[in-house]
Amino acid sequence: MAEDGTLAQVGEFGLIARMLSTRADSAKTTDAPESADPAGSTVLVGPGDDCAVVQIAGAPVAITVDVLVEGRHFRRDWSTPLEIGRKAAAASLADIASMGAVPTAVVVGFGAPGDTPVNWALAVSAAISEECAFVGAQVVGGDVTASESVVISITALGDFQGRQPVLRSGAQIGDVVAIAGRLGWSAAGLAVLSRGFRSPKALVDAHRVPEPPYGSGPAAAIAGATSMIDVSDGLVADARHVGTASGVVLALESKRLTVPEELMGAAAAYNIDARTWMFTGGEDHALLATFPQGTVLPEGFVVIGEVLAGEPGVMVDGAPVAAAGGHEHFR
Amino acid sequence: MAEDGTLAQVGEFGLIARMLSTRADSAKTTDAPESADPAGSTVLVGPGDDCAVVQIAGAPVAITVDVLVEGRHFRRDWSTPLEIGRKAAAASLADIASMGAVPTAVVVGFGAPGDTPVNWALAVSAAISEECAFVGAQVVGGDVTASESVVISITALGDFQGRQPVLRSGAQIGDVVAIAGRLGWSAAGLAVLSRGFRSPKALVDAHRVPEPPYGSGPAAAIAGATSMIDVSDGLVADARHVGTASGVVLALESKRLTVPEELMGAAAAYNIDARTWMFTGGEDHALLATFPQGTVLPEGFVVIGEVLAGEPGVMVDGAPVAAAGGHEHFR
Repeated sequence: MAEDGTLAQVGEFGLIARMLSTRADSAKTTDAPESADPAGSTVLVGPGDDCAVVQIAGAPVAITVDVLVEGRHFRRDWSTPLEIGRKAAAASLADIASMGAVPTAVVVGFGAPGDTPVNWALAVSAAISEECAFVGAQVVGGDVTASESVVISITALGDFQGRQPVLRSGAQIGDVVAIAGRLGWSAAGLAVLSRGFRSPKALVDAHRVPEPPYGSGPAAAIAGATSMIDVSDGLVADARHVGTASGVVLALESKRLTVPEELMGAAAAYNIDARTWMFTGGEDHALLATFPQGTVLPEGFVVIGEVLAGEPGVMVDGAPVAAAGGHEHFR
Repeated sequence: MAEDGTLAQVGEFGLIARMLSTRADSAKTTDAPESADPAGSTVLVGPGDDCAVVQIAGAPVAITVDVLVEGRHFRRDWSTPLEIGRKAAAASLADIASMGAVPTAVVVGFGAPGDTPVNWALAVSAAISEECAFVGAQVVGGDVTASESVVISITALGDFQGRQPVLRSGAQIGDVVAIAGRLGWSAAGLAVLSRGFRSPKALVDAHRVPEPPYGSGPAAAIAGATSMIDVSDGLVADARHVGTASGVVLALESKRLTVPEELMGAAAAYNIDARTWMFTGGEDHALLATFPQGTVLPEGFVVIGEVLAGEPGVMVDGAPVAAAGGHEHFR
């Protein structure tokens, strides 16, 4: 692809790949050996995973940032400020969980137009703090600015409690692939809202406020997960990220995905295959992990496939899936 | 003020104060004793200073976020992507320096419209990495998203190298007030650009890319600075922040501010008092610090006043300055 194209032409992942390859400080990938930067701190995991991991005073610390913008990640006419704040915080907190870490401290960047009601902004702020408090983290600082539309940037730090980070790159041939949390609920809720409906409420609520299985991240790490990722782009797309980073194939079996009744009802009403939502919908922040065969899986995890040798990537029911199969920004 | 107003009515600082007082986790101020959060990490300094300070593995770590939005902090037709990236990074790196810390790791959130040229985005990204590398910090991760206008969120971590954080709240009666770095250059450059001119180049350049005296932050901490702040809202406004946080008066003397020739020329051309730029202009990221009388000041610091008892705030040439006297968002 020509470098003189637009972001819409190269897409989110194309932009990230180019940023990493053209950066002045020759950014590390998770495959590179750890490196000491000039200030003496050590980067254990650089760009390319759900979180970066830096070593501070001998301890690994996870750090991640997510930016949510009005009209892309939320709409003020579809969601309350409480829902928007909780959803924004969940995106970053789930990234911390997917490394096997526990969120500790959060800083928030907030931009909004001058005619925004104070109460709306305060409700977003309070909701971010609430979602953080739910997992034991604390908002320790932030920045506010005027902007044309609402933008929320959430940076979270996470503590590994003495464990090793669980990366995208550790899946081993023979491992089982397992999932914890909801798949497709947020996508189904978006489909409902897009058609002008407000029910089924469970689906709409799931789109407005995800309920990531935060505790399953550290639990998976303790159980010996070899790799893990937060499903934010879609199951197939994120399984592909793990397969590519690990140099293996994540072979998923659709028959192992139990379609919840809530999804079945909406899918029937709209004449859609509910599994499409489950395979391609993001934003529920389920956790996808691989474990050695025979591992007693932590509560909440369900086996949905296995790790095979082959062209790195993802297969569904024995067939490679080449298309993105998930959300990608700019496209 | 009524809580049902708009952000334009309460302003940036009014919003921050309300966010801190209504938050679910009852945010700490720098005056509050340190507190342990449920996950076991300790918040040494909460919202209200240039950075928050959290304790990780026994070491204090500074953390700060700044959000820059197109049309407010920069314009694509006035600045190159290299200038925009460096300016964005400088805002957060200067906050780290103003605590007396050294920047180590940075994460970047980047939003832009789909029709943005790839090369433009890559140049911004490279410039952020360059400004970080200049101070020995490394971009370790980030997030990219589509958005209506360009938004850049920069979170930086800082290492105190065994020193105590220098807060806004430590100024003591009898201290001298000193400044390192430029004052008013960015404001003068903005005035030049606003009138449709591109010279004097030194002023325009200063607006496009600030040159914060990064090294003066740790140097001030080593020399025994009692308080410090990054001048980003304007000298008077930021001196007031220190005075208020410390419960003292920062008494500034305008005759101690040497007006650089570059500012004098532009001020004469536009019939403006150059000291107005120096007292109210932000974005040069000068460092304002207080030191005990008799301290041998680090290179680059110049005394511009003293710390007095009285109604907490700021005085210029013996007169209290009640108005904001600096930039405030939403207004």
